[in-house]
Amino acid sequence: MRIERVKGELKSLRRSVEMIDPSVQSSVKEILSDVKQRGDEAVSQYTKTFDGADLSSFFVTEEEKQAAYEHVNKDVLRAIRQAAENIREYHARQLEQTWMMTKDDGTILGQKITPLDSVGVYVPGGTAVYPSTILMNVIPAQVAKVERIVMVSPPNAEGKLHPAVLVTAHELGVKDIYKAGGAQAVAALAYGTKTLEPVDKIVGPGNVFVAAAKREVFGHVDIDMIAGPSEIVVLCDDSANPSYVAADLLSQAEHDERASAIAVTTSNALAENIRDEVERQLQQLPREAIARRSIESYGAVYVAETLAEAVEVVNQLAPEHLEVMTKDPYLLLGKIKHAGAIFLGEYSAESVGDYFAGTNHVLPTNGTARFSSPLNVSDFTKKSSIISYSKQALDQNGPLIASFAREEGLEAHARAVEIRTKEGEV
Amino acid sequence: MRIERVKGELKSLRRSVEMIDPSVQSSVKEILSDVKQRGDEAVSQYTKTFDGADLSSFFVTEEEKQAAYEHVNKDVLRAIRQAAENIREYHARQLEQTWMMTKDDGTILGQKITPLDSVGVYVPGGTAVYPSTILMNVIPAQVAKVERIVMVSPPNAEGKLHPAVLVTAHELGVKDIYKAGGAQAVAALAYGTKTLEPVDKIVGPGNVFVAAAKREVFGHVDIDMIAGPSEIVVLCDDSANPSYVAADLLSQAEHDERASAIAVTTSNALAENIRDEVERQLQQLPREAIARRSIESYGAVYVAETLAEAVEVVNQLAPEHLEVMTKDPYLLLGKIKHAGAIFLGEYSAESVGDYFAGTNHVLPTNGTARFSSPLNVSDFTKKSSIISYSKQALDQNGPLIASFAREEGLEAHARAVEIRTKEGEV
Repeated sequence: MRIERVKGELKSLRRSVEMIDPSVQSSVKEILSDVKQRGDEAVSQYTKTFDGADLSSFFVTEEEKQAAYEHVNKDVLRAIRQAAENIREYHARQLEQTWMMTKDDGTILGQKITPLDSVGVYVPGGTAVYPSTILMNVIPAQVAKVERIVMVSPPNAEGKLHPAVLVTAHELGVKDIYKAGGAQAVAALAYGTKTLEPVDKIVGPGNVFVAAAKREVFGHVDIDMIAGPSEIVVLCDDSANPSYVAADLLSQAEHDERASAIAVTTSNALAENIRDEVERQLQQLPREAIARRSIESYGAVYVAETLAEAVEVVNQLAPEHLEVMTKDPYLLLGKIKHAGAIFLGEYSAESVGDYFAGTNHVLPTNGTARFSSPLNVSDFTKKSSIISYSKQALDQNGPLIASFAREEGLEAHARAVEIRTKEGEV
Repeated sequence: MRIERVKGELKSLRRSVEMIDPSVQSSVKEILSDVKQRGDEAVSQYTKTFDGADLSSFFVTEEEKQAAYEHVNKDVLRAIRQAAENIREYHARQLEQTWMMTKDDGTILGQKITPLDSVGVYVPGGTAVYPSTILMNVIPAQVAKVERIVMVSPPNAEGKLHPAVLVTAHELGVKDIYKAGGAQAVAALAYGTKTLEPVDKIVGPGNVFVAAAKREVFGHVDIDMIAGPSEIVVLCDDSANPSYVAADLLSQAEHDERASAIAVTTSNALAENIRDEVERQLQQLPREAIARRSIESYGAVYVAETLAEAVEVVNQLAPEHLEVMTKDPYLLLGKIKHAGAIFLGEYSAESVGDYFAGTNHVLPTNGTARFSSPLNVSDFTKKSSIISYSKQALDQNGPLIASFAREEGLEAHARAVEIRTKEGEV
């Protein structure tokens, strides 16, 4: 792991956004238009081709869900249940309220909060199974009171989904689980098929085909952010324990070769200890190969002159996950402008937030924490403005409104006011 | 204007999303990459080609702003000032607060609200000048406490911007106004040039080139929604005044030939009166030709059997603007699920919200009110999750977190917890 002194233009530290491969884009477009036209039939065909599954029915049955419980460890089930409770408790605080304001002249203005009607949650299939993803995507939608939540996930060659996926969905009360993955599942959610009603928003992670398909259908339906590779930055001074720092860097690096794990510190000695600890712990990891490639390609320890400079580095990186292991982490909270999730203190390992604490693990990647937020309840509601004017309010303000409209050359706008007021001559 | 009885599949009423012309897309891509590489030089060149202006400097001077006041009518200035005050007052209510929750075991979880660092506001040039657009895009960013707000707008052939644009910007305290438009302005905002620092988010309406450019740079920076043609739906029963309904339909229709103006009513007699009033008022409008084409192509009066059916039509249309002119409009507020702005009662003309009341006029079009919101203060802030665990909390929950991580095959995640707790043996 390289150690580098911070200097010069900090902006160069930012990672650039990756582009979607044009060949992926064109095959995704083909799949989308095929599913739009032929519906379930096209989905069946792609599921056979890509997943090797010949399905007689798209939907998971109640029996399948019940049977799945036999294959899930009791401790894992306890963890899922406790995590779900924590996530629900945290997200309940995010629910916005409809409000109104009134004025003496009879004016009422307001903002109405309404849940989306329907949401589709994409759950990746294959060898890696992430029940936590289901919790993080479904629970905020439930807290928002979305009426219809559909899950889609690609089946294996036997036409089955992983038991942990089924159990998690069942624990949350998700009824409709449609067995399909890839661009074909995104198309089915966006356009609908004979068996699947379309949804208004699609969330959840997926491979490049899923990401490209979501980008294509955006506008027709809403989507969540397109997730890039995962990132962690650990901001630490000489009070930090290098083994903890190293362990957390590696918990990020084991995700993906393209994951990025960076420590920023004011201490040369700590920097060296972190590097040594990373190497020591790396050798003991089952996913050593992946983690090592990530550390070699995107890992670094940056040494800053001052804590202020270190914070500036963090803000430039705008990391998905930020851990602060300094003497008084709360002192820095106000200075941290850009980070998806901020973990404060030495016991706040990133895993705590990934699985359990209650905050969402769907976070802005690739520096988009500069302008994006963690997945949250407001992503599953929308606002409507409310305007209610009295005759008194319109009489009083009508002339100003009309002159503003005429300045913009919109006569009918002016007349719509004047027809209702004493000025009206139309 | 056609009158139609509501029947059958209501979904067919929805308008479909328009696609961007591929030739526009490819020339936009070229402009973007050219500006990314050559910066100001490329912007200058495109400004000469497209706007006919040969600029010596990109930025509007203080003198230009001051001189502009001579060309703006006093009533208009009063209207701009009062509208700005109303907009600021309404949007102040939208500002979210950072919050925290604590638990007995020492856990602290929270959500931090941080303004974006910088925002670019696109203001269209040409013959139609919309000072109201500046108010609606700049004020929410100011309320959010965005530090740097840059305006861009294409100059005329003399290298000048419209006085009303300059005055409005000056009234709001916008300092940096960069004279450029089209895709080249979007590129300059997204990538930066020698004279213009890049921004984190680009908002504001524009022609197809601007829309296509915003779509392309999305991900690298954030953007607001891509606006489609404007829409109004007036929901009315036999208590409604047909002249008011007609006037409001026309205030929408005069915007654009592709604008859509629809009345939904339970009364046959009212439907006919609205049609006749539309024709009568149409003949007196300066923008009659545009409004007539809009009414002929996209205008309609739908007659529903019941108010409940009429509301269902509204929810299917998910209009940008909805006016409710019924005996008791508040009775219907809870039933209205999808609308960008809801105008209640006969004195709440759409113009009131377009210019003056305080709500935002940047609203979701083309049925996207199903999942999108009016432009608001939260569009200029982002959230960061806060997680702070105590040793006690980690000791107690560590085993569950570790077992969850192992279920997902992520050993390093489990170890990052165990290294800190009594379970730790690494």
